[in-house]
Amino acid sequence: MIASDRINKILYGGDYNPEQWPEEVWQEDMRLFHLAHIDVVTLNVFSWASLQTDDDVWDFSRLDRIMELAHDNGLKVCLATSTGAHPAWMAKKYPEILRTDEHGIRRKFGSRHNSCPNSPIYRKFSARLAGKLARRYGHYDNLVAWHVSNEYGGFCYCENCERAFRVWLQQKYGTLEALNRAWNTAFWSHTFYDWDEIVVPDQRSEEFYFEGRLLRSNFQGISLDYRRFMSESIQECYRLEYDAIKKETPDIPVTTNLMGTYKVLDYQKWAKDMDFISWDNYPRYDAKDWEPAFQHDVMRGLKQGMPFALMEQTPSVSNWHPYCALKRPGMMRLISYQAAAHGADTIMFFQMRQSIGACEKLHGALIGHRGNEHTRVFREMAKLGEELETLGSQTLGGRIHARVALVFDWDNWWAAELSAGPTILIDYVKEVKTWYRRFWEKNIPVDIISVQDPLDAYQVVLAPMLYLCKDGFAEKASAWAKAGGCFVTSYFSGYTEEHERIVTGGYPGRLKELLGIWVEECDAPTPQSHVTFRYDGTSYPAEILCDLLWTEGAVPLAEYENEFYAGMPVITKNTYGRGCAYYIATHSSDAFYDTFLDRLCAEQGITGIAESPEHVEVTLRSKGAVQNYFALNHDSNSSWLRIPVSVRDLLTGECFSADAPIPIEGKDVRILQETN
Amino acid sequence: MIASDRINKILYGGDYNPEQWPEEVWQEDMRLFHLAHIDVVTLNVFSWASLQTDDDVWDFSRLDRIMELAHDNGLKVCLATSTGAHPAWMAKKYPEILRTDEHGIRRKFGSRHNSCPNSPIYRKFSARLAGKLARRYGHYDNLVAWHVSNEYGGFCYCENCERAFRVWLQQKYGTLEALNRAWNTAFWSHTFYDWDEIVVPDQRSEEFYFEGRLLRSNFQGISLDYRRFMSESIQECYRLEYDAIKKETPDIPVTTNLMGTYKVLDYQKWAKDMDFISWDNYPRYDAKDWEPAFQHDVMRGLKQGMPFALMEQTPSVSNWHPYCALKRPGMMRLISYQAAAHGADTIMFFQMRQSIGACEKLHGALIGHRGNEHTRVFREMAKLGEELETLGSQTLGGRIHARVALVFDWDNWWAAELSAGPTILIDYVKEVKTWYRRFWEKNIPVDIISVQDPLDAYQVVLAPMLYLCKDGFAEKASAWAKAGGCFVTSYFSGYTEEHERIVTGGYPGRLKELLGIWVEECDAPTPQSHVTFRYDGTSYPAEILCDLLWTEGAVPLAEYENEFYAGMPVITKNTYGRGCAYYIATHSSDAFYDTFLDRLCAEQGITGIAESPEHVEVTLRSKGAVQNYFALNHDSNSSWLRIPVSVRDLLTGECFSADAPIPIEGKDVRILQETN
Amino acid sequence: MIASDRINKILYGGDYNPEQWPEEVWQEDMRLFHLAHIDVVTLNVFSWASLQTDDDVWDFSRLDRIMELAHDNGLKVCLATSTGAHPAWMAKKYPEILRTDEHGIRRKFGSRHNSCPNSPIYRKFSARLAGKLARRYGHYDNLVAWHVSNEYGGFCYCENCERAFRVWLQQKYGTLEALNRAWNTAFWSHTFYDWDEIVVPDQRSEEFYFEGRLLRSNFQGISLDYRRFMSESIQECYRLEYDAIKKETPDIPVTTNLMGTYKVLDYQKWAKDMDFISWDNYPRYDAKDWEPAFQHDVMRGLKQGMPFALMEQTPSVSNWHPYCALKRPGMMRLISYQAAAHGADTIMFFQMRQSIGACEKLHGALIGHRGNEHTRVFREMAKLGEELETLGSQTLGGRIHARVALVFDWDNWWAAELSAGPTILIDYVKEVKTWYRRFWEKNIPVDIISVQDPLDAYQVVLAPMLYLCKDGFAEKASAWAKAGGCFVTSYFSGYTEEHERIVTGGYPGRLKELLGIWVEECDAPTPQSHVTFRYDGTSYPAEILCDLLWTEGAVPLAEYENEFYAGMPVITKNTYGRGCAYYIATHSSDAFYDTFLDRLCAEQGITGIAESPEHVEVTLRSKGAVQNYFALNHDSNSSWLRIPVSVRDLLTGECFSADAPIPIEGKDVRILQETN
Repeated sequence: MIASDRINKILYGGDYNPEQWPEEVWQEDMRLFHLAHIDVVTLNVFSWASLQTDDDVWDFSRLDRIMELAHDNGLKVCLATSTGAHPAWMAKKYPEILRTDEHGIRRKFGSRHNSCPNSPIYRKFSARLAGKLARRYGHYDNLVAWHVSNEYGGFCYCENCERAFRVWLQQKYGTLEALNRAWNTAFWSHTFYDWDEIVVPDQRSEEFYFEGRLLRSNFQGISLDYRRFMSESIQECYRLEYDAIKKETPDIPVTTNLMGTYKVLDYQKWAKDMDFISWDNYPRYDAKDWEPAFQHDVMRGLKQGMPFALMEQTPSVSNWHPYCALKRPGMMRLISYQAAAHGADTIMFFQMRQSIGACEKLHGALIGHRGNEHTRVFREMAKLGEELETLGSQTLGGRIHARVALVFDWDNWWAAELSAGPTILIDYVKEVKTWYRRFWEKNIPVDIISVQDPLDAYQVVLAPMLYLCKDGFAEKASAWAKAGGCFVTSYFSGYTEEHERIVTGGYPGRLKELLGIWVEECDAPTPQSHVTFRYDGTSYPAEILCDLLWTEGAVPLAEYENEFYAGMPVITKNTYGRGCAYYIATHSSDAFYDTFLDRLCAEQGITGIAESPEHVEVTLRSKGAVQNYFALNHDSNSSWLRIPVSVRDLLTGECFSADAPIPIEGKDVRILQETN
Repeated sequence: MIASDRINKILYGGDYNPEQWPEEVWQEDMRLFHLAHIDVVTLNVFSWASLQTDDDVWDFSRLDRIMELAHDNGLKVCLATSTGAHPAWMAKKYPEILRTDEHGIRRKFGSRHNSCPNSPIYRKFSARLAGKLARRYGHYDNLVAWHVSNEYGGFCYCENCERAFRVWLQQKYGTLEALNRAWNTAFWSHTFYDWDEIVVPDQRSEEFYFEGRLLRSNFQGISLDYRRFMSESIQECYRLEYDAIKKETPDIPVTTNLMGTYKVLDYQKWAKDMDFISWDNYPRYDAKDWEPAFQHDVMRGLKQGMPFALMEQTPSVSNWHPYCALKRPGMMRLISYQAAAHGADTIMFFQMRQSIGACEKLHGALIGHRGNEHTRVFREMAKLGEELETLGSQTLGGRIHARVALVFDWDNWWAAELSAGPTILIDYVKEVKTWYRRFWEKNIPVDIISVQDPLDAYQVVLAPMLYLCKDGFAEKASAWAKAGGCFVTSYFSGYTEEHERIVTGGYPGRLKELLGIWVEECDAPTPQSHVTFRYDGTSYPAEILCDLLWTEGAVPLAEYENEFYAGMPVITKNTYGRGCAYYIATHSSDAFYDTFLDRLCAEQGITGIAESPEHVEVTLRSKGAVQNYFALNHDSNSSWLRIPVSVRDLLTGECFSADAPIPIEGKDVRILQETN
Repeated sequence: MIASDRINKILYGGDYNPEQWPEEVWQEDMRLFHLAHIDVVTLNVFSWASLQTDDDVWDFSRLDRIMELAHDNGLKVCLATSTGAHPAWMAKKYPEILRTDEHGIRRKFGSRHNSCPNSPIYRKFSARLAGKLARRYGHYDNLVAWHVSNEYGGFCYCENCERAFRVWLQQKYGTLEALNRAWNTAFWSHTFYDWDEIVVPDQRSEEFYFEGRLLRSNFQGISLDYRRFMSESIQECYRLEYDAIKKETPDIPVTTNLMGTYKVLDYQKWAKDMDFISWDNYPRYDAKDWEPAFQHDVMRGLKQGMPFALMEQTPSVSNWHPYCALKRPGMMRLISYQAAAHGADTIMFFQMRQSIGACEKLHGALIGHRGNEHTRVFREMAKLGEELETLGSQTLGGRIHARVALVFDWDNWWAAELSAGPTILIDYVKEVKTWYRRFWEKNIPVDIISVQDPLDAYQVVLAPMLYLCKDGFAEKASAWAKAGGCFVTSYFSGYTEEHERIVTGGYPGRLKELLGIWVEECDAPTPQSHVTFRYDGTSYPAEILCDLLWTEGAVPLAEYENEFYAGMPVITKNTYGRGCAYYIATHSSDAFYDTFLDRLCAEQGITGIAESPEHVEVTLRSKGAVQNYFALNHDSNSSWLRIPVSVRDLLTGECFSADAPIPIEGKDVRILQETN
């Protein structure tokens, strides 16, 4: 949750499902919560079937008791609306609420995320339930947030959706002429003469799937619009619940738990309808230390840096990972503080007590199947709970101030990967992460922003692989650069406008002038290729794509070493007004980005907020005069860091003078507050 | 077939399809059968379309002639009921008999195993056909067995099945309350209020498939029950034919051909409805020598050691293998005797004459496409036929006596692999086989038993990976151990009871006391992990899963060498009454199992029935005072064995004194009868 | 296109889609075409939606303007019929025109190749459109060819197709008795008693698919007939348009663009309905230099060597390749001339101007997204255009004369790969290519012929892997060999007759006598096998399959070195009348084929038409007394060749005396005309 008059510390708790247990267990849970310093629970995530048993039959008695239980035990409540899975009776009575998959196969009752977002029945019933809950429980003084549905996502291709898509298109394009133009339907004789001729783009029409994943579309314009439509349709379901709640409890903040770089939903649009961001952090067993940091920064960027909630993480294992590796001792604490270091003001878990049946029964929990406090996981959680109590409100509300921004755009993600060609290796998130990593290693704060966000606060803006470049962005970036900003982009940028139509005249389209180049051709290295380029005296690999470009004002800084385009520029810099613009014509190795970005930062006067070895992460959250440095040692061995101001460790009380080497144990965390 | 007053030798023959050939070929077949010493044929496996051409139109004239042909030529007959594939006319007239796949797609006529097991039409027609056949041919004195349908298996998800599933659930659970509890439907809002709300668990509802294979389920309880239901539904089809036959010919034994460790059908339940076990042995080209032995032992265990029939094997190639490698010279004989060595009293083949069209036309046969006796395959088969004639009844009816049992359980197989987590490497059959191999190498007889079987006869019982531990088993095993037995189990055991609900209080659930341990956590090594443990001075790999356990009475015998759980026990031994219980907390290399099991056997006084190098297999079948040792040299080079009694080779007449080294040629077989 | 009174040079141009652009762009296109020496355009490939907007509503106004534009600018026109993709309105009004996939899922409007070939509506409308176009534009004197539809292909499994399949079967077999015999339906109880019992063979009935590809069928006979039926159904759609066109313009040649070894359509049957062959050449990034040559020769063989048109190739990248590698400088010219070298009299491209939207927008074009002539691709194309103008008519109409023929048969391709067994490594095209490569390297012309083609012109005929051997071929080949021909075939040949029924009596069936051998068994090496054989003093690998054969008159030339069949023959030669027949019992390495074929050619007096290193390709096209040698250097370095006659380079004017080494630059081309 986020700071409010009801919250004065990092709340600590998570999903709690007492409905799966007899009431005698509830009291034992309270005892254990107390031992573990749990102070917040998310309730009612999946209880629709018990709350409503027919169109107009409701039973809130058990939830009433659960709410009382929480209240009596001093627990804050994040109250979910239970609409993440509809009841079986509803699916039987109203089959239209069931989704239809990309093959046109209608689902049967089961699983979750199972409701068609364009089903009027689902929309009516879900908003009604949200409203009832708000009316019934809105008065609780321990209610700190509403949690709408759960991990929204997925797709539907049913006839309801098809009809709604046509309406959406009519609203967007007004006329079929405009739609035919936007989608370039003169290609392959696709001209539409009636809105009803338009069908959903799926495996049956334009798209190719493999293992349930969309590989490519024959009509990227249609598929791109369907992704927008589907994200907005689901957002509309959220919005209907949001409105129903707000009508009753205008002052209780409302959220839904997001999932980081989740491709299906354009969270940048969603954020506008959320009072605060919350999200679920489940790094894979092989995630790099900086990858959760990247995800946190993406989430933090959704609402321009506002603190967010870590709504879910696992105390130890995630049962749906291919290999359910245990979180090593200290890891749960380290990764929890990493969230706080990047802007989280809440640290929560899925789950408080482990289920005994169904698909998540092997997922980690505060209270495992053993059922008591005598486990490593419980002890580690209790210890962190105690520490957070000690910490109190000292870090709440702090903001990260970055002079570097990394542009991330969902439309572009969809478009770049829907494209047939130029290589199957296109991976937008991977490209963005490639650029992020080096800043993380150097303790340089980075904001991850949308193309709509203002650029004024930044010295450096990186927008790699901006294949689809929305109207206005090139102009904004150019004006900002002219005033002194440093813009960086890469291969496969500037190709199309918002409708995914190519901007003719040469790539990178509207960014050409700013960059002072044009790209004539683009070669896709095959697995047999070994293209290299020379930069700063060293040879680096050129991978994924190799642009063949010509400067038109820009200065080449690196050249290909082989292939028929040997000697052509790979890196260019264009002076633009008081600023400049860099273009990187290929993808390369980490070593390249290290060198390039270190030089760029030096040139632009960008420095890290602390000095440390690469595996020691340091962030800075500020609130007014309060400066809190979060130092996290991802290595198992002890290490060090240096901070340019004198600090006191809020956890240990130790003080360190400015620039003194501060020791940090393996996997340990320090929260260092600037002292005067 | 099994011994009866009609059988006084190992019957030798196989599937014979004269209906595919003009009658003039039949006489040539008889000549060739005589040359090859064939004395039994399986008839009428796929003839439904010719026997019945409308609801009430039947034509047995050709089968009459075939039965006469067999009788006139002194052939025993195993008569099949032809219900393994329904006729095209029936599918057209009654589409309900067609199966529906896991995507909800109804099949069209084609292939085999194509009938919905819950179709009333299919059940009626198939039982009717079986009854008619029994009435018409039951009087033949050369009829030695009934062969119902063929290689039953597969799934159906049609509306008939859905309705029948609800009825089955009502009978099982009585009330929806009980069902909701068993399935833990409080999870994900799955509470059912009406039986009709329950739908089949498939790709449309709870399950994930890849390449037609079920990967996992969101509701393991539902999916587990559906597997039970489907196995029982198909068994009911079998049972209806069985009853129709028995009504006419109560004294002719009835079977159906099973397929070893075939996951879809719970053969341990099926066995109760079979007069004797028969099965089809098609080892893959890369099968280890001991793998068919394992399968034979699984099959032998279904009816507590009763001799069985090898109903099918290929004379040379299996056309549906990825690489149709020829059986090398001598292999067909060796692998045939391996069946006998493990309890088979019949040696049969698919097929007598090779088809000229459709999908099995490239499968091996006694009479190949060349059409005569002048082939290697024919000569090898004729030679074995002659040898079996010489052998006569000398080995019939012999039983294997084992002091070691290996528990195998279909419910557990399904449950352990339906589970989401803790690792994608869970493979129940592989784990059981891992334990089996060493006993085979040491010529130690092993019974493969169900959890319902009595344990009294055994000194050692191994039940690895017993994730789902049925009610009563822990108690039975504990009582038996207390009386002196030695119990062994492994990681991922004792987690759930019969409904796949976790037994709380710590793993391994109800087995905790017997084992004297409890498992706190369970780490899944990733492909990057290299966990090891030390046992008896040597380091071994810890793979698949690594339990973190605490002894509660047991003694640790080995410890992890690395990871944060270095020093924790990997192998424990608990003294329990007059017996003991071992726990192996991980999966390891063959070398480990060699060492561990050799020590275990030494401790428990378990010895092999003969001494030999690893590639020479020796088994012992006893009947009264008659002791027959089967020695099989799987190596290409000559080798040896030693038997603790004096013996005479039933095939060569050679005699050997007790403990003398007995030479055996490469790929050769000896049947050595104890002499006085 | 092919030579006519309207064509006196290699036409040069390609697909032009002005309908995707405003008319002001058209004039700029004309300017650019002129610069690039473009003289032919393919028009109207995908315009059905704009030409016809309801059953009886037509609008040809834009196409009228486009035709005038082409005419006014001196462009020849290849006019397409636009039926490769139906309009959206038609799909909405007549859903029957939509295809149904192999799972029984009906498609929705989208993509292309989307019309059911057995839809009466589609057939009526497509033929009507073709007729209207012919009537309206047939009078243009710059119309050089009709281009029906586009890249026909794919499958449909709808109810229309099912009904049409039954009619097709009735026409083919006459009686169900004949059909049941042909398909061997006595197997697996498949006997049909009514035509309506027959269903389409697909995933729902007899077939297994993986990733949309048919892996195998349970009833090869049915599946084989369905492939024939489907190819003929689509051909019938083509034929209906052909007839409608010919009625109006009997003298304008009609074609459709084929796709090389495209498995779905039996182009050898199609060729009979085509006035000339045209095809689309899109070699993958990793294609060997000889692979397009093989494809050209397959295409050239369809009409017995008649010159053909290269209808499409890409100027640079193919967007649908996994890695869209640029054609290196010179490659476009080299590969264009390779087409001419193998019989093409037209060099065309997809596409003239690059689209700005939908799935091919990243495909190469003469006029790229930059929109002007200042690109490498444009310059290379303009240069080649100029060169072709210079070349004029000097090479037109030339024929290739080969003494070696390689048999290629679609029915056999289908049948060999539908088969379940003997190994998953069966790959017919790969086997045929294996034999082709060496002739290419030695500059020995090869005709790729059907089994129906006459053999008289050839000294050597190779028919590898002729699993399905159509009636009459064995007799024809035998008579031809008896008269002095040299016949070569391989493992997996002669198994079945036309209905895919095994020819009993031993493999290779009807070819046994000619080959003087019989094959007793056939071993499929597994990945663990390392079988070798010795030939001419060297050891070579035996892969895929290893026949165990016996000579019956033939002489063994090589023997297995290991496995139990060591010493058995691998290569045999049978003297047959004045000729001979070779049998190669396995698949081996390139090195083996080099040795074997070089010796075979020496023995048979076959020599290359020029001498050169392997990477320099030389072909010879003759017309009357005119002899044109095409020399292509696929290497990047300069090289050489020798021609046995004196020649003059038509491109450079250089003259070379007979047998003199002729230098050739890297990636360069020479067209060398014999001088007197």
